[in-house]
Amino acid sequence: MKIAIAQLNFHIGNFDSNVEKIVAAIHNAKRANAELIVFSELAVCGYPPRDFLEFDDFIDRCYHSIDIIAKECDTMAAIVGSPSYNTKGKGKHLFNSAFFIENKKVKKIVHKSLLPNYDVFDEYRYFEPNLTFECIQYKNKKIALTICEDLWNTSNNPLYTTNPMEELSKHHPDVVINIAASPFYYHQSDARKEILKNNALQYHLPIIYVNQIGAQTELLFDGGSMIIDRKGRIEEFDYFKEDFRMVEFKEDITIEKVKISNVQPIQKIHDALVMGIRDYFQKLGFQKAILGLSGGLDSAVTLALAVEALGSENVLALLMPSHFSSEHSVTDAKEIAETLHVSYEIISIENSFSSLEDTLKPYFKDLPFTIAEENMQARIRAIILMAFCNKFGYILLNTSNKSEAAVGYGTLYGDMCGGLSVIGDVYKTQVYELADFINKDQIIIPKNTIEKPPSAELKPDQKDSDSLPPYPILDKILYEYIEHCFGPDEIIQLGYDEQLVSIILKMVNINEYKRKQSPPILRISPKAFGMGRRLPIVGNYLS
Amino acid sequence: MKIAIAQLNFHIGNFDSNVEKIVAAIHNAKRANAELIVFSELAVCGYPPRDFLEFDDFIDRCYHSIDIIAKECDTMAAIVGSPSYNTKGKGKHLFNSAFFIENKKVKKIVHKSLLPNYDVFDEYRYFEPNLTFECIQYKNKKIALTICEDLWNTSNNPLYTTNPMEELSKHHPDVVINIAASPFYYHQSDARKEILKNNALQYHLPIIYVNQIGAQTELLFDGGSMIIDRKGRIEEFDYFKEDFRMVEFKEDITIEKVKISNVQPIQKIHDALVMGIRDYFQKLGFQKAILGLSGGLDSAVTLALAVEALGSENVLALLMPSHFSSEHSVTDAKEIAETLHVSYEIISIENSFSSLEDTLKPYFKDLPFTIAEENMQARIRAIILMAFCNKFGYILLNTSNKSEAAVGYGTLYGDMCGGLSVIGDVYKTQVYELADFINKDQIIIPKNTIEKPPSAELKPDQKDSDSLPPYPILDKILYEYIEHCFGPDEIIQLGYDEQLVSIILKMVNINEYKRKQSPPILRISPKAFGMGRRLPIVGNYLS
Repeated sequence: MKIAIAQLNFHIGNFDSNVEKIVAAIHNAKRANAELIVFSELAVCGYPPRDFLEFDDFIDRCYHSIDIIAKECDTMAAIVGSPSYNTKGKGKHLFNSAFFIENKKVKKIVHKSLLPNYDVFDEYRYFEPNLTFECIQYKNKKIALTICEDLWNTSNNPLYTTNPMEELSKHHPDVVINIAASPFYYHQSDARKEILKNNALQYHLPIIYVNQIGAQTELLFDGGSMIIDRKGRIEEFDYFKEDFRMVEFKEDITIEKVKISNVQPIQKIHDALVMGIRDYFQKLGFQKAILGLSGGLDSAVTLALAVEALGSENVLALLMPSHFSSEHSVTDAKEIAETLHVSYEIISIENSFSSLEDTLKPYFKDLPFTIAEENMQARIRAIILMAFCNKFGYILLNTSNKSEAAVGYGTLYGDMCGGLSVIGDVYKTQVYELADFINKDQIIIPKNTIEKPPSAELKPDQKDSDSLPPYPILDKILYEYIEHCFGPDEIIQLGYDEQLVSIILKMVNINEYKRKQSPPILRISPKAFGMGRRLPIVGNYLS
Repeated sequence: MKIAIAQLNFHIGNFDSNVEKIVAAIHNAKRANAELIVFSELAVCGYPPRDFLEFDDFIDRCYHSIDIIAKECDTMAAIVGSPSYNTKGKGKHLFNSAFFIENKKVKKIVHKSLLPNYDVFDEYRYFEPNLTFECIQYKNKKIALTICEDLWNTSNNPLYTTNPMEELSKHHPDVVINIAASPFYYHQSDARKEILKNNALQYHLPIIYVNQIGAQTELLFDGGSMIIDRKGRIEEFDYFKEDFRMVEFKEDITIEKVKISNVQPIQKIHDALVMGIRDYFQKLGFQKAILGLSGGLDSAVTLALAVEALGSENVLALLMPSHFSSEHSVTDAKEIAETLHVSYEIISIENSFSSLEDTLKPYFKDLPFTIAEENMQARIRAIILMAFCNKFGYILLNTSNKSEAAVGYGTLYGDMCGGLSVIGDVYKTQVYELADFINKDQIIIPKNTIEKPPSAELKPDQKDSDSLPPYPILDKILYEYIEHCFGPDEIIQLGYDEQLVSIILKMVNINEYKRKQSPPILRISPKAFGMGRRLPIVGNYLS
């Protein structure tokens, strides 16, 4: 039996486009004499559909899509992800399902058993877990059909009380098929391979694993579908690209030539961010990006990523100096814009700033220059950028990094503006790594931009290091707190200064109100700010 | 047996303050010769603690709090809500628990069985559900101890597959105690009484129900704890206030004098919003609010609520006219500010706007005046308001209503700014009702403010009705879509114009990106924008 595997990029709620892609893949597979084709989790509606699942109209459109797809499945069967109604009269109203279609009819609907409900996942918000297990019989093969998380309950302290593979293996399947929607973070593809390989070895079964690609706002899906034989040998699909492959399943599935990518995490982060920008614009129907180019590292790296994603002709950079801007800020910014062939404009904020100062003079009188005036500059820049967006149809790219977002070192409604935060999940120390990666073949980001001390340039001779510890230390403490959920005692035990730890954790917590209003942040880490990290604003823990 | 019931306002993560309140209530109860005192759900840490639950350090502090509380429980037992570790080696790492403390020791820990995971609730994100049921024996009484949702699995199509009261009733309890954290919306107190009464009648048992009060950012808890006897007669506690009462439990609990409040929904909304503002400031340690007062209805109502919450001496209003502002805007705004004894300043945005126009002239040239210039005005006002915040320590109150937030009729980084959105869950038609309620004893909001046609005044002779259908129609369609999750066909079948429905639903969906960056919105409806409504930004459903 030939099995086709379709790794595709779906658009949430865009049923026409999703069905069209699925049908086109079915036609390809038929031409290649496949007898079965497999699509990823919730393929018909895109993953994650989130609260669209609460609309019966949305679910009805999923069923309607399945009907259209079924008509194409004459000579060939298909496995397609879709929500389905729970008709048992108890429990949540939906299942997260895999529809097995054969002879133009839905022959079987298999439901997901393990519903991830942590980090960015909310599946128990919508779906009832499956508790009954049987295999699908097709062409003399028994298929253990599972959905994503169903294969992940493997630790010594498992998150779930049921184990689908334990149950399914009692029915002696010939193969495991897993349809997934597994989002990227920099170590996720390794974790996936490890989990799937362990399943193959433990149950002595080949596995066909199908993931989706593409960006769904902040969530980035990297693909990396794979075929694993019962000896744990892996053939890996492309990352960050649609892919379509066939596997021959005679007596068994055997991987003759192991194909595993060996890509460094920083390149994965780079590729993920480029896809994240590109797909955000494509799915929203926009072409052109704008950003504020300060001459600093963050906006330089964001610009380079935007150019790669959208093309230099689709990116405009605004250089908006004030009298606090150093000379090299403008020259450094010009240099990278010119290197990347990006149009730029130099727009001074001096007059607007003076005018606002005059307006406020009767109230601020002779009070000293404070954060109020610093923020005013950042907010004037935001007005100018947003005016270009509103006038010409740009989307503003936000250039804040994760370290800043964490400690609130940024101006709400100022440099925190934007339709999309490109590097908001990238710590400052990783931004340096990204810059080096971008410069690996030729200097794109000027040496001076990388080497000069980071500064917001909102008051005379300001440096980030005036108010923050050095980034290599800051980032490590943030990582322990944010990614590891370590408390102060645990972090201090790692050798960090008690007072410093206390100050930093407090900064993180009291700035939750700013992050609440931040643009969506492309997620590249196991714990990004946004939907995967949910904290109360009026909380008073460590603050 | 005398049972004390403590309806308190807890602060998330503020263990010192929560423990202090709990201990004070224990002392009160002891003085009144109580033998048992009952506190609400997750009392030690406040509800909802959200992802603070992912920090072991946070959970350890909960246990430590329980230790301190237990020391006070010498002559009297206590039921205290707290998370507890799941030590079974399977499933989520925590339970949502009620600690039964007697003789200074934790005698029993009862876990919540039904974990709400819909709307604003994420409990399955953290907690493993309980599946075993037994009663607590205390002073010759058998107590069926349950936690909030445990009593709510009652419809014909129940959301959960287990029913705790069915299980517990097999053990023949004498009383049901339910510790809760049930947030407010305008019909929730009625729903609660109905559910609890039905439980009392069905199982023929008295129920002691303890809720918390107070605002936890967007979630408003209204209290309304109650005692229900087995005939379904109810004694209701205060709403929106801390309360402490005793109930006598001899052979049975009997309500001699039914006490049920009969308050109109619009008053509940008013009281909830006032508490929401007050508690937000109190928990963050701020005193002073600022807002932009346009002369329109929304800012007038917000101002009146702010004054009630914080006192007129703690509120500053800025009137920021442009040359598009009508004469009556300023006079209406002044009138309400003066009526409420609120300080105000009139700050023209003319010069700042001209200055920005000049700055942009080389790029915008002679292009027509568009949304770009409209938004610039709103954004200049935001800069001024935020400059006051940064200079003097105000929190900016956002004045947008739910109808605007729904269709995106507002300027991101302009009038959408603020630390807290006061009426962002109040439809425009409800804002009129609120104004009438505020004016019930004396005219506070000027007649002209209520009667003039709503306008953003960002271009000549602009009216909301230029780009939006009349609010009474708009709000009804929005309600069917947002609160009922009806699709277009269902709404059209209710008698609304097909094209209008299509345009409005599209406006709602394409403006998700704006709402992503909105301030937290005080929740008074069953479906507020914010944590209870989660939609993908790049989705393409009905758009």
